[in-house]
Amino acid sequence: MSHLFLRTLREDPVDAEVMSHKLLVRAGYIRRAAPGVYSWLPLGLSVLRKIEEIVREGMNEIGAQEVHFPALLPREPYEATGRWEEYGDNLFRLQDRKGADYLLAPTHEEMFTLLVKDLYSSYKDLPVYLYQIQTKYRDEARPRAGLLRGREFTMKDSYSFDISAEGLDAAYAAHREAYIKIFERLGLEVLPVFATAGAMGGSKSEEFLHPSEAGEDTFVRSPGGYAANVEAVSTVVPEPLDYTNAPPAAVVDTPDSTTITALVDFVNADYPQQAREWTAADTLKNVVLAVTGADGERRIVVVGLPGNREVDLKRVEANIGAALGIGGEPDVEPATEDDLKKHPGLVKGYIGPGESLDAPVLGEKGSTGLPYFLDPRVVEGTVWVTGANAKNKHVIGLVAGRDFAADGFVECAQVLAGDPAPDGSGPLEIARGMEMGHIFQLGTKYAESLGLKVLDENGKLVTVTMGSYGIGVTRALAAIAEQSHDEKGLIWPAHLAPAQVHIVAAGKQAEILEGAATLADELEKAGLTVLLDDRPKVSPGVKFGDAELLGMPVIVVVGRSFGEGRVEVKDRRSGERTEVQLDEVEGAVRALLASA
Amino acid sequence: MSHLFLRTLREDPVDAEVMSHKLLVRAGYIRRAAPGVYSWLPLGLSVLRKIEEIVREGMNEIGAQEVHFPALLPREPYEATGRWEEYGDNLFRLQDRKGADYLLAPTHEEMFTLLVKDLYSSYKDLPVYLYQIQTKYRDEARPRAGLLRGREFTMKDSYSFDISAEGLDAAYAAHREAYIKIFERLGLEVLPVFATAGAMGGSKSEEFLHPSEAGEDTFVRSPGGYAANVEAVSTVVPEPLDYTNAPPAAVVDTPDSTTITALVDFVNADYPQQAREWTAADTLKNVVLAVTGADGERRIVVVGLPGNREVDLKRVEANIGAALGIGGEPDVEPATEDDLKKHPGLVKGYIGPGESLDAPVLGEKGSTGLPYFLDPRVVEGTVWVTGANAKNKHVIGLVAGRDFAADGFVECAQVLAGDPAPDGSGPLEIARGMEMGHIFQLGTKYAESLGLKVLDENGKLVTVTMGSYGIGVTRALAAIAEQSHDEKGLIWPAHLAPAQVHIVAAGKQAEILEGAATLADELEKAGLTVLLDDRPKVSPGVKFGDAELLGMPVIVVVGRSFGEGRVEVKDRRSGERTEVQLDEVEGAVRALLASA
Repeated sequence: MSHLFLRTLREDPVDAEVMSHKLLVRAGYIRRAAPGVYSWLPLGLSVLRKIEEIVREGMNEIGAQEVHFPALLPREPYEATGRWEEYGDNLFRLQDRKGADYLLAPTHEEMFTLLVKDLYSSYKDLPVYLYQIQTKYRDEARPRAGLLRGREFTMKDSYSFDISAEGLDAAYAAHREAYIKIFERLGLEVLPVFATAGAMGGSKSEEFLHPSEAGEDTFVRSPGGYAANVEAVSTVVPEPLDYTNAPPAAVVDTPDSTTITALVDFVNADYPQQAREWTAADTLKNVVLAVTGADGERRIVVVGLPGNREVDLKRVEANIGAALGIGGEPDVEPATEDDLKKHPGLVKGYIGPGESLDAPVLGEKGSTGLPYFLDPRVVEGTVWVTGANAKNKHVIGLVAGRDFAADGFVECAQVLAGDPAPDGSGPLEIARGMEMGHIFQLGTKYAESLGLKVLDENGKLVTVTMGSYGIGVTRALAAIAEQSHDEKGLIWPAHLAPAQVHIVAAGKQAEILEGAATLADELEKAGLTVLLDDRPKVSPGVKFGDAELLGMPVIVVVGRSFGEGRVEVKDRRSGERTEVQLDEVEGAVRALLASA
Repeated sequence: MSHLFLRTLREDPVDAEVMSHKLLVRAGYIRRAAPGVYSWLPLGLSVLRKIEEIVREGMNEIGAQEVHFPALLPREPYEATGRWEEYGDNLFRLQDRKGADYLLAPTHEEMFTLLVKDLYSSYKDLPVYLYQIQTKYRDEARPRAGLLRGREFTMKDSYSFDISAEGLDAAYAAHREAYIKIFERLGLEVLPVFATAGAMGGSKSEEFLHPSEAGEDTFVRSPGGYAANVEAVSTVVPEPLDYTNAPPAAVVDTPDSTTITALVDFVNADYPQQAREWTAADTLKNVVLAVTGADGERRIVVVGLPGNREVDLKRVEANIGAALGIGGEPDVEPATEDDLKKHPGLVKGYIGPGESLDAPVLGEKGSTGLPYFLDPRVVEGTVWVTGANAKNKHVIGLVAGRDFAADGFVECAQVLAGDPAPDGSGPLEIARGMEMGHIFQLGTKYAESLGLKVLDENGKLVTVTMGSYGIGVTRALAAIAEQSHDEKGLIWPAHLAPAQVHIVAAGKQAEILEGAATLADELEKAGLTVLLDDRPKVSPGVKFGDAELLGMPVIVVVGRSFGEGRVEVKDRRSGERTEVQLDEVEGAVRALLASA
C-alpha cells in the first residue's frame, strides 16, 4: 500500500445515494469521470476482472463462443430494425468526419444477426450461441447510484440462433440455468421474474433481480413461487356478472366531487346503499394520458380503472403500444392542461364513458373520439359510480357491457400487495430489486428485419429464431458491494476480493514493518493473495480503518505482541479476532477464507 | 471445428491491400463491421488476449499499475489542453441528451493527469506509473490496411508522473526497456527510432517501428545505428561559407524556365560555369504552402530549399507550427491557384526572395509580407540560382546572407538516401515501417494545463512532469501476421497461436474421426492446446487448406496410415512432414513447438 495507486476518502461523494456507490468511491475502487461514467482504479479493476471471468466460465460451460464487437457501429442495421428511432434519447449518436451516422451500441442484436448471416447458411450450422463481454453505452436521463445506472458500463451479452421454437426454448433454458449458476458463484442472490420485452421485442422474457431496497425495479412474488416484474403482472380477470336485475343507471348531482374521496363521501351521505357503504373500489376513475410513440406523435387516450387504484405509468407503457397498434414501448405521461383544452368534451373531474351504449363519450366511436381502454377488472356486469361528463354530476349504477364499453382492455392499474398471483399461487407481496440479468426469446424479429435465413433439411429458406441474454457485469459488482458491506466498509467474498488477506503493519518500528513484509511474502509463497499495508508513516488507527473500508475478507494485524511471536487474525465480516502464533497464521487464514 | 464459429473464405476481401488484412479476414479471425472498425471472431480474440497478456506482464514488471478509463469522456479536460481543437477531424465528437460535449478518447493524457491530481498531493507519492489496455478511437481520414489503421482499436497506454527531469528520464528508460522486452516476447522485430511529438506535445520521443514494406511510416537508419522517423531527422547544417570574393548577383533572361529541369538546362546552355555544370542543387526552389493550424486559420507561407529536393509536407507539418509561433501540428498543403491569386507579388515559376537585403520580396518584411523559411542547408555564403520575381527572369549568383535572408529555418526538404546521419554515424538509408509503439517525454505540458502540482521536499508546490507511452495492441497482432505468413496463410508463433496443434481428421471413416478425437483428447490431457478439424463432410483437401490458412504452428494429419498406427506431423512454417507412431506424437509436436 506504500506504492499502490489508492487514496481512501473519509467523506462520501456528494452525489452518492446508495451504499455501494459511497463505499466503492471512498475505498478507491472507482472514480467518477463524468455523470454515469467511471474510471476503474487498481483494486476495482481486480474485482471486475474476477467477475468477468466467472461470467465467462459460465458461458463457456453451455458451449457459447466468445467474440468481441465494436462499440462504435453504423446506423444502418439499427435503422433496419427500427431501434435507431425506438431508443430515442437513450442512444448516443454521432457522425464521423464524412457525416455518416454512427451510434455507441447499447446492445448488439443487429450485429450478431448480421455476423451469423455473413458466416452461416444452413440449419446444420445451428444452433450456435455467441457472447461477448464488452463496453456498452446508454445515455440515461438520470444516471445515478454509481455503477448501478451508468452511461458506460460492461455487459456480457449473448445471442442464440436456431431454426425451431424448440431450439430457442433449449437455448433459453441453457442460459437460464447458466445464469442461476453464475449468480450463485458470484454469491449474489437473484430471483428470476417474468418480465416484458420492452424495446428489445420478442416474446418470453425473464429478469434476474437482486432483491434490494436500493433497486429501481418493483416486482411481486407469491408464497407459491410466482415472481414477476410489476410491468409483467397480468390481472386475474373476474367472471362476468349477471346484470339482468341491475337497476337502471341514474345521473345524480355531486357538487364539488372532483376527487375519489370526495365522491365516495358524498354518495355515502346522499345516496347510501343498503348492503354496505360505497368505497373507492365502486368508482370508475377515468384518467387522461398522453402517449408518445417512436414516431414522435403525441396521442391522447383515456384509461378507466377502479378508483381504489392509481394508474401505473410503467404498466401502461409496457402494454399500450400493442393496444394502440403502434407497438414498442411508448412514453406515457399524464395529460397536461394544454392537452385537455384541445378536448372540450372532457369535463375535468367528471369524465365518464357516457351513460348509454348508444351515446358513448369516450372511445373511438364516442363523442370525444378519444381511444378508451379499461382495466381488465371492469368486466361485463360490474356496476360503477363514475363521471357524467357534466360539472358536478356523476352517474350511479352504470353497468359495464350494458351502459358502456371501451376500445379494449389495458393493464393500467397499479398492482397492490394482496392481489392474487395470476397463476393462483396466492396473494402477491411487493418488493424492490436490481436487474442483474435479462433473458429474451426474441423469435424472428431481428432475423426478419435483417434477412437472416438458412436452408432447412428440405432445402427451403427459413428465418432463424433468436434469443438474447444479458448480464450487467459492472452492475453485478455494485450489487455485490450493496449486498455485502457494513457501516465500516466493503466486505468482499474471498473469491472476488482484490486480495484474500490484508496485512496491517501496526506500528512504525522496523521490526514490525519487516515482520509484516516477511509474513506477506510467506503467505504469498503459500499461494494466498496478500495486500500489505506497509505505509511507514500512517498510524495504526488509520490503517485499521482502511482495512475495514477496503474489505478484504481476512485482516492480519502485526502489532504489539509480534515481539512474542503472535499476530491477530480477524474475520472482516464477523469482526471476530484471534491471536495466533506466527506458524499458525496460514491455517487460521485458510479456515476463515473457507467460511468467507 | 464442427462447432467452432468460423468460416474460412477463398477470396480476399475487396478492400484489402495488405497481407495481414487479407489473411485475418479469410481465416475468420476478424470481420469488418464498418470502415476501420472490426469484430473479433473466436480465433482472433484468442490471439488478441494472448498479446494483451504479454503487454500486461511487461508493464507489471516495471511496477506500472493497471487501471481502466472510460472511452466516452467530457470535453472540458481536452479543451483545457487544447487537444479538443488540435485533433481536428481525427476526433470523434458527440453530444449527450442534454447537449453536453463528449469525445471518444484517442489517448488519455488529460484523464490520467486529473486522476493523479485527484488522488495525490506530495512528492512522496511519486513516481507512479499507471497504464490501461483499452479501446481507443480515431476518426482516420482513410482507414485502411485492416487492423493496421483502424478507427476503433486496442491500445496499451501508460503514463508516468514524477517531479524531476531525472525521474522522467528513469520512467522513460524503464518503458523503453519494457517495450523492447515486450516486442521480443511477441517475436516482433522493432526498431526504436527518434520521432517528433506531434499533437501529443513534449520533448523527447521515440517510435518503435516494425520494418515492413506495408508500413505507412518512412524512417531512416545509418550503419552506425542512428534511426529516426523521417519527420524527426535534422539536417546536418554546413558551415557558413566565406563570400568575400563572390561576384555580384545578376538577373538574367530565362524564358519558359518554370521548372527546375528547364532552368538548369537553360543556364547550362546560356550561362555556363567554368568549374562544373549547374545542377538542380544549385537552384533555390521557393514553394508556396498553405498552413492551417488548430485555430482553422489558413496561412500562406513560402519555403526555400535546394532544387534537387522535393518539399516533404510531413516534415513541414512537424516543424512549421513552432516556426510560425502557432504550435501543434498544423495541416500543410501546396497553395492553390486561389491562394496565389490573393498574392499578385508572387510570379508563378519565378518566385525568389528578392535580389537585395534592402528590397526583400519574401519574408515578413518583404514586399509580399509572406513568412519565408529556408531549409537549413541554405547557410550564409551559399550561392544560388533562383527566381527574380518577374516572368522569364531568374537571378544567378544570389548569396545567402549577403543578398537575401528569411524569417527562419524550417526542416522542409525530403531526406534522401545517402544524406549524412545527424550524429555522424554515416549515410542514411531509407526504409518503411509500421508504428508499433511510441514513447514521449511530455514534460509539464499536461500538468500545467490541468493544474497538477504536488508539494516538494521543502513544502513548495511544483508542477509534475509526465511521460506517456503507447503500444498498439491490435496493430501488433496485424504486424505479427504481416511478418509471419506465406502464400497459403498465417503462421503463428507457438505462444500466440489460438492452439498449438491443429489435428486434421483426413477421411470420413468413423475410425479416422474417432482416432483424431482420441488423439486430440490425449494431447490436451498432456497439456497441449488443440484445434481439431472433425468436420465429417469436408474433404481432406479443404481441411489441409484451412489448416494452412489458420496457421497453427503444428499440423497433425490423421489419415491413411492411421490404420497402421501412424500419423503425419507437419511443421507449418517449414512445411516439413514426418510420419510418426501414435505414441511419439506428443514428443514430435513438442520438438516442433520448441523451434516454432
